[in-house]
Amino acid sequence: MVKSCKASLDPSVCEMLEKARNTGVETVWDRYEAMLPQCGFGETGLCCRHCLQGPCRIDPFGGEPSKGICGATADVFVARGLDRAIAAGAAGHSGHARHLAHTLKKTAEGLARDYTIKDRGKLRAVAERHGIPVENRSDDEIALDLAQAALSDFNEKETPVTWAANILTEKRVKVLSEQGLLPKGIDYEIADIMHRTLYGTDADPMTLIQAGLRTAMADLAGSYIGTDISDILFGTPQPVVTEANLGVLKADAVNVAVHGHNPVLSDVIVGVAQEMAAEARAAGASGINVVGICCTGNEVMMRHGIPACTHSVSQEMALITGAVDAVVVDYQCIMPSLATVAECMGTKLITTTDVARIPGAIHINFREETAGENAREIIRIAIENFVRRQGTPVNIPARKSRVVAGFSVEAIVNALAKLNPEDPLQVLIDQFVSGNIRGVCLFAGCNNVKVPQDQNFVAVARRLLKENVLVVATGCGAGALMRHDFMDPSKVDELCGDGLKAVLTAIGEANGLGGPLPPTLHMGSCVDNSRAVALTVAIADRLGVDIDKLPVVASAAEAVSEKAVAIGSYAVAVGIPTHVGVMMPVVGGPEVTRVLTDKVRDMTGGYFIVETDPDAAAEKLLAAIDERRAGLGLRVPGGARR
Amino acid sequence: MVKSCKASLDPSVCEMLEKARNTGVETVWDRYEAMLPQCGFGETGLCCRHCLQGPCRIDPFGGEPSKGICGATADVFVARGLDRAIAAGAAGHSGHARHLAHTLKKTAEGLARDYTIKDRGKLRAVAERHGIPVENRSDDEIALDLAQAALSDFNEKETPVTWAANILTEKRVKVLSEQGLLPKGIDYEIADIMHRTLYGTDADPMTLIQAGLRTAMADLAGSYIGTDISDILFGTPQPVVTEANLGVLKADAVNVAVHGHNPVLSDVIVGVAQEMAAEARAAGASGINVVGICCTGNEVMMRHGIPACTHSVSQEMALITGAVDAVVVDYQCIMPSLATVAECMGTKLITTTDVARIPGAIHINFREETAGENAREIIRIAIENFVRRQGTPVNIPARKSRVVAGFSVEAIVNALAKLNPEDPLQVLIDQFVSGNIRGVCLFAGCNNVKVPQDQNFVAVARRLLKENVLVVATGCGAGALMRHDFMDPSKVDELCGDGLKAVLTAIGEANGLGGPLPPTLHMGSCVDNSRAVALTVAIADRLGVDIDKLPVVASAAEAVSEKAVAIGSYAVAVGIPTHVGVMMPVVGGPEVTRVLTDKVRDMTGGYFIVETDPDAAAEKLLAAIDERRAGLGLRVPGGARR
Repeated sequence: MVKSCKASLDPSVCEMLEKARNTGVETVWDRYEAMLPQCGFGETGLCCRHCLQGPCRIDPFGGEPSKGICGATADVFVARGLDRAIAAGAAGHSGHARHLAHTLKKTAEGLARDYTIKDRGKLRAVAERHGIPVENRSDDEIALDLAQAALSDFNEKETPVTWAANILTEKRVKVLSEQGLLPKGIDYEIADIMHRTLYGTDADPMTLIQAGLRTAMADLAGSYIGTDISDILFGTPQPVVTEANLGVLKADAVNVAVHGHNPVLSDVIVGVAQEMAAEARAAGASGINVVGICCTGNEVMMRHGIPACTHSVSQEMALITGAVDAVVVDYQCIMPSLATVAECMGTKLITTTDVARIPGAIHINFREETAGENAREIIRIAIENFVRRQGTPVNIPARKSRVVAGFSVEAIVNALAKLNPEDPLQVLIDQFVSGNIRGVCLFAGCNNVKVPQDQNFVAVARRLLKENVLVVATGCGAGALMRHDFMDPSKVDELCGDGLKAVLTAIGEANGLGGPLPPTLHMGSCVDNSRAVALTVAIADRLGVDIDKLPVVASAAEAVSEKAVAIGSYAVAVGIPTHVGVMMPVVGGPEVTRVLTDKVRDMTGGYFIVETDPDAAAEKLLAAIDERRAGLGLRVPGGARR
Repeated sequence: MVKSCKASLDPSVCEMLEKARNTGVETVWDRYEAMLPQCGFGETGLCCRHCLQGPCRIDPFGGEPSKGICGATADVFVARGLDRAIAAGAAGHSGHARHLAHTLKKTAEGLARDYTIKDRGKLRAVAERHGIPVENRSDDEIALDLAQAALSDFNEKETPVTWAANILTEKRVKVLSEQGLLPKGIDYEIADIMHRTLYGTDADPMTLIQAGLRTAMADLAGSYIGTDISDILFGTPQPVVTEANLGVLKADAVNVAVHGHNPVLSDVIVGVAQEMAAEARAAGASGINVVGICCTGNEVMMRHGIPACTHSVSQEMALITGAVDAVVVDYQCIMPSLATVAECMGTKLITTTDVARIPGAIHINFREETAGENAREIIRIAIENFVRRQGTPVNIPARKSRVVAGFSVEAIVNALAKLNPEDPLQVLIDQFVSGNIRGVCLFAGCNNVKVPQDQNFVAVARRLLKENVLVVATGCGAGALMRHDFMDPSKVDELCGDGLKAVLTAIGEANGLGGPLPPTLHMGSCVDNSRAVALTVAIADRLGVDIDKLPVVASAAEAVSEKAVAIGSYAVAVGIPTHVGVMMPVVGGPEVTRVLTDKVRDMTGGYFIVETDPDAAAEKLLAAIDERRAGLGLRVPGGARR
């Protein structure tokens, strides 16, 4: 049995990778090898294809060509490229949000019978935040107004996007407004980016960066809408106990992996799978085993305790087990290669949305109006596949980690309220002041094939936890940490510094867990980085300071998607020092690099830390936390730093 | 004096290029030389930078790498790239349209005192087309509703974009609807493209192409809005006599070049320049000479007879004369290099919009509310520059061409009405039937540094005119033809076949011109390709057939901008065979290439003709025209084809 490999820190992945190699199934690591060496112009952002006179490239070493054919400089190249990446990321998150807003609307209109308002309290809380009357109104009336409000945030308006202007500290809104960083409309800002990055349009790196940060704020708005409406429709997460890694697959069950990002279909699949268990048993299976991949997995884990199968770069490995009967995808981060791997391994790949078709997949034309029916059709395909695969051996690595997930802001505040019902956040603040909590770090983003899977996340988180940094995580960052036991409460002793251990234990015990909270708190999917912002804003408001004064940092240690670029950029815009652990294609532009890693502090208080070495990254994140602590007049640990 | 060179067919450009070389001023041709050889992966579209695992490239010859790291194929690479180009193009045209819609709104609200409704008839005609009541209503009331209708077309709606659904033949709307090509909202479709081209989202070349064509229709909508509102605010063009080429600059005048695309500022500059002539004379100048570059130039030429200085790839050459006091830019197609050339040549470069800043330029924060004031400030800067440059020799090539421009659809119909007041279009139809007009070709798009400037336009147009094809032109395509005398009525004899000559002469004489119309009809700027669509629709409606049955073709013989890609794509979507004379970065995807050049006919009736050889391109365009003629049962010239 393979226990380690260069590709991943996760032994289960290494095991499946060996099987893939032995059986001749091509994986992402093979394709990465074939791509080496990668183009240095593209890596540094010094390539431009924004017109038909190109492609242009700029010599990063100061030789010729030193400019594009139009005269654009290196800084213009990279700023335009950054902007388009942010626009794409914002389009992804907000496309997801729009999908949810339409679902909420159809639910309120009675057109989507498979959905209900699950969290009436959150519906009202969100409605009130956006000035929608709630007194003496039905859920459907409120929900319809809320859905309309969300949808109107996509359009250009004379007032800023409400999901940007209503969710932050008052001071932050003022900063953003003064810096021209409040978006007018989500779709509007995306279109504005595409206009200004057109041939012969914006050639000033500073206005390009400003527009990029503004569009990143539109990305935050989309993400926040996504979280809000998901909670309203599917319930606000509360702590659940579950498991993660390929070991959650069951050889004798119908295994259905839900993959992508959105709960609109996957939440229905979870319900339908329970209803159809008898059908699966009649077909000879022990039952239906729904498992998650990537953020769709996070959504159903947070709300239903559905185990996570794997994440991000290792998505193909789930199929290599031979045990997955159907992988059902919505959109984003779905490798097109799944079609081939599925074909080889006897898995049915099922696409469900128009924006993410894959040739070779079965396409189910999913509609909210017919969600239950669509889900039943999908489960039936999986059951049929289970019957067909009988007799074919499967290889499921045994390893799985215990995971306590479900830490929405509401769940965190509830847990703190057990210690101080009057003022729950005071609990956290006291621990900041005492130094038991040195700061907070959010881990987010993807696994990148360029990094041995999970290596950066694990190394940075391990160091920060020892230094009493409270770690929260989302997306495939959460996935990485959960597969390495960072969400198993029994690992607090091993992973956390004494101060943090005391805090996690006190909260856990006050909540009747008979032990600590897990070492890292799973806050949800990628859109749920909005939850991390919400928590930060709550703390800032409680302290009466702006976000850029708090000892809060973020890390996208193994980022891939343009969504991660957008997330990192809004983190910087709201005032958070933000680590990126892979090369960003802006480093070819010296001025842009200087602005993003330094000068932007004068605008927003946040900045990027681009550092591919995880140990150095941890040091830089600690230094950023300590600088903020010092700014607040809090004790900075002396001997703790090296 | 230099008369010819490899860079351009235009002797004035060659002359200035020699001056640039002699004085050490870097030009676009120098930067192009420095860029050679260009990256073959980028040229064929086989490079992808849509995530941080890349850059990826695919071997066009079938070797490794054969896929992206995620598993995306060559066809996915090129389809995603095409989609983003179309999205950028649509964002550009629609950003321009939005600017005009806001100007119309502010005008109606009395907030923009420097603007008035110039064409009340067009205001009413456009309003009626969009179901806005006009009876007993003031201009401002109608204009406000119309501006709102235009602005709402940017947003996602349950009904299609009205500027797509209300401007085409009924049959075409049905085709587009059935094929999923009717856009829901302009910004919405742009955001949808950015979502589906995100890492791990759409991996099906066919849905990617479908979304691209739908977004191209959003580009047409934006363009059409741009034309409509420009005509309402600044007047619908009627034939004017003017001149083109560097010879329109005057050594003893304050030369102000307006460059970019939008008439919102430039139209005001034209008026203010007249008012301020005395101020210029007091400073020792003979007057203020406003000249145009690119489409801003087309806008003011069409409405005011302002001469065109130069176009597209030769924009730097205007400054090389040393005679331009100020070049005032709005947005799009403005080479950032102008800042350096302006610095070298003593020209003031003035930027005016937030979306198109250039370091080194003077920035005037142009607002519609202060348009006149902004324009006066600009003219004053130019006058000061004139004073400063006295004593410095200028070099203005003498050459200029006579140009008759201003052929809006309204102007064309008016001209035809002199021959048949009851049914003006019947005049054209009779000539189609008789064969005096074999077909129509629209020339559009840019000059590309990869092609000796104007070569493709001139070669293809020359051949088609001889074959009695009615040639209309827009944008820098019109610029190319005007600088080579194709808009000089005295050249009809030399350029046109006998049938076409007879038609142009009959119309010209009926209109009291004492001679023919010019060999090619200038229909306006790039957004005014909408006029070509409108003319085609009018003819189709008159004949009771759909656009894809008409002997109408288009050619972007030297395309550069992503806008040209979007225009070409909507031409294909509305059913027009469309030539592109430069390599499109889709040729690396065999299936996508096959779809765009052939299979798309089954969807829309239109298709791309990618042909870099102008003689071969002309043959293919003639063949496409003849195929359509045969389909209509019209005589196909026998001996005329070779």
